[in-house]
Amino acid sequence: MTEPLAPGAVIGILGGGQLGRMLSVAASRLGYRTHIFEPAGNPPAGQVADRVTTASYDDKAAILAFAEAVDVVTYEFENVPTSALDLIESIRPIRPGRKALAISQDRLTEKDFLSLLGLKTAQYADIPDVQTLRDYLDNIGTPAILKTRRLGYDGKGQVVIRDPAEAEAAFADMKGAPAILEGFVTFQREVSVIAARSISGEVVAYDPGENVHVDGILRTTTVPASLSNAQLTDAVLMAGKVLNAIDYVGVMGIELFVTANSLIVNEIAPRVHNSGHWTQNGCAVDQFEQHIRAVTGWPLGDGQRYADVVMENLIGDDITRIPDLAKQTNTAIHLYGKAEARPGRKMGHVNRVTR
Amino acid sequence: MTEPLAPGAVIGILGGGQLGRMLSVAASRLGYRTHIFEPAGNPPAGQVADRVTTASYDDKAAILAFAEAVDVVTYEFENVPTSALDLIESIRPIRPGRKALAISQDRLTEKDFLSLLGLKTAQYADIPDVQTLRDYLDNIGTPAILKTRRLGYDGKGQVVIRDPAEAEAAFADMKGAPAILEGFVTFQREVSVIAARSISGEVVAYDPGENVHVDGILRTTTVPASLSNAQLTDAVLMAGKVLNAIDYVGVMGIELFVTANSLIVNEIAPRVHNSGHWTQNGCAVDQFEQHIRAVTGWPLGDGQRYADVVMENLIGDDITRIPDLAKQTNTAIHLYGKAEARPGRKMGHVNRVTR
Repeated sequence: MTEPLAPGAVIGILGGGQLGRMLSVAASRLGYRTHIFEPAGNPPAGQVADRVTTASYDDKAAILAFAEAVDVVTYEFENVPTSALDLIESIRPIRPGRKALAISQDRLTEKDFLSLLGLKTAQYADIPDVQTLRDYLDNIGTPAILKTRRLGYDGKGQVVIRDPAEAEAAFADMKGAPAILEGFVTFQREVSVIAARSISGEVVAYDPGENVHVDGILRTTTVPASLSNAQLTDAVLMAGKVLNAIDYVGVMGIELFVTANSLIVNEIAPRVHNSGHWTQNGCAVDQFEQHIRAVTGWPLGDGQRYADVVMENLIGDDITRIPDLAKQTNTAIHLYGKAEARPGRKMGHVNRVTR
Repeated sequence: MTEPLAPGAVIGILGGGQLGRMLSVAASRLGYRTHIFEPAGNPPAGQVADRVTTASYDDKAAILAFAEAVDVVTYEFENVPTSALDLIESIRPIRPGRKALAISQDRLTEKDFLSLLGLKTAQYADIPDVQTLRDYLDNIGTPAILKTRRLGYDGKGQVVIRDPAEAEAAFADMKGAPAILEGFVTFQREVSVIAARSISGEVVAYDPGENVHVDGILRTTTVPASLSNAQLTDAVLMAGKVLNAIDYVGVMGIELFVTANSLIVNEIAPRVHNSGHWTQNGCAVDQFEQHIRAVTGWPLGDGQRYADVVMENLIGDDITRIPDLAKQTNTAIHLYGKAEARPGRKMGHVNRVTR
């Protein structure tokens, strides 16, 4: 059994958005301080952190000084440049580890990894050129979706192909970036499993949440999800398989499509996940604290849920609904401290305790 | 209806202990930043605040600069020196207001205020000299308790008189400070009401909690308390009377003794209160957010409770129980980030969700 990081130790967090912000608050509950590294000025996480470094990931001196000032490094988003990770790793542990990042930074690597584990994914193919795209469209059929292998999130960097004739335009849209073609999945519902693994290999999962996406952005998560007991068990076992396969340490979000016959992995995110925000008002140990527990060597919370919750994201102008939401019973508001509400920008979320 | 303080506004908090820390976290959930003013270095609240000023309350320049840097000022403890409050009030609103501080800073003023409102308190008397003390001991009987009128908390600045012969020694213990004699109350249980009042005069109370004190320090709060429906209503009405009488803005803790025939006010605290920590895991809007809502002009949360909770303080060496507590189901840990565990020092608390 490893000893947990001592009280007062400093957790370095790469990325200063809302996930870093809520990680920082959770770290404080366990007596830890946080140090945020973020290229953009005035990051939301900085408002509740002990320290902030504002510098580029290419700034080697800043990265080294940051790593030296903290005891362990974690991250709130998976696209941290490899060069920065190399530098940090030379002096401090990075949790979750590099394997998880390597897999989740590349959609093709991720799909291959999941397939090798025996988990189902959408049909997919590496697309190095237009001819390959045309060939696979023949196999997979339309509609299908062409995505850049790297740096996509919330529906960005992807284009839906509804007719084989659109192949050339779609490929051009990738602007030369390596691409992957994915078949469409006809699903009954989308769910996600928020699971955690500790340094000593303990695995814990929260009850799966049922997600509704609009325009590629998560709109609501409802817990409990409408799943049979068999599906529920399968979902949790699949999550455990993924975490154990890469000796993962921390919280992971695993998005699943539920079809008539099976569960299909949509994608995995090696970090706390938007669809796990409900845990803040339904569990004694929420996903943010669970992640901090994992990366600092604490025992994990057991994931027990004591309330039913509907989480709703507040996106862009939704922020104008706050005066009404503030008056609603059993409605917990979580705002992110962002100065400006832009369309599609996640400004906060509410957790409605429904039972 | 007043407009709430704009998102991104800064709340100044006098005092950087655990209450300021949890106020700061709650403020972040509503999109506000906080600025802590605290004479002691490395205050727990500073670890999760946007800014910290480390200076004495006598440092006029620091007090003024602090007030100018924030939009509204609140406090986590009631013994802020008057001179500092005068300075701040000349440029920024202080919420709760000066009346609440004037009352709660002096036990005699507080008892007089409560009596004038028609609320029951323990028998009490102003004690300017030993002879008056002897006279009142004859009236009130022993045991009785002699307290300094100002600056007492957690059982400090007070001495129990078990025999009239102890009068002289007890009076000497006050070291010349103005003192008040209080009669003993034989009670069945201690409860407290955490109530809030908004700028527009709306009053909301949480379910009363049942408190157990050991050595003058709060040990546990259990919600719901064992109260009849009539007692429950009385307790909440008493709280409302107090808040309305002084146009209070913010959260107040009101400690009550429950006797066979009545509810007797023990003391009031014009701030978030240790016995309200359970709200963090039992309500969508906890007492810290409720206080921030009040002082920034938000509508108040309705105080609805969706879980039963037992709050237990972690005092001094209790901190060594953390490894065990961390493994318990439905147990939320809240540590305060204090470097050193001293006897009697509040290091954190746990909220056990029991239903």
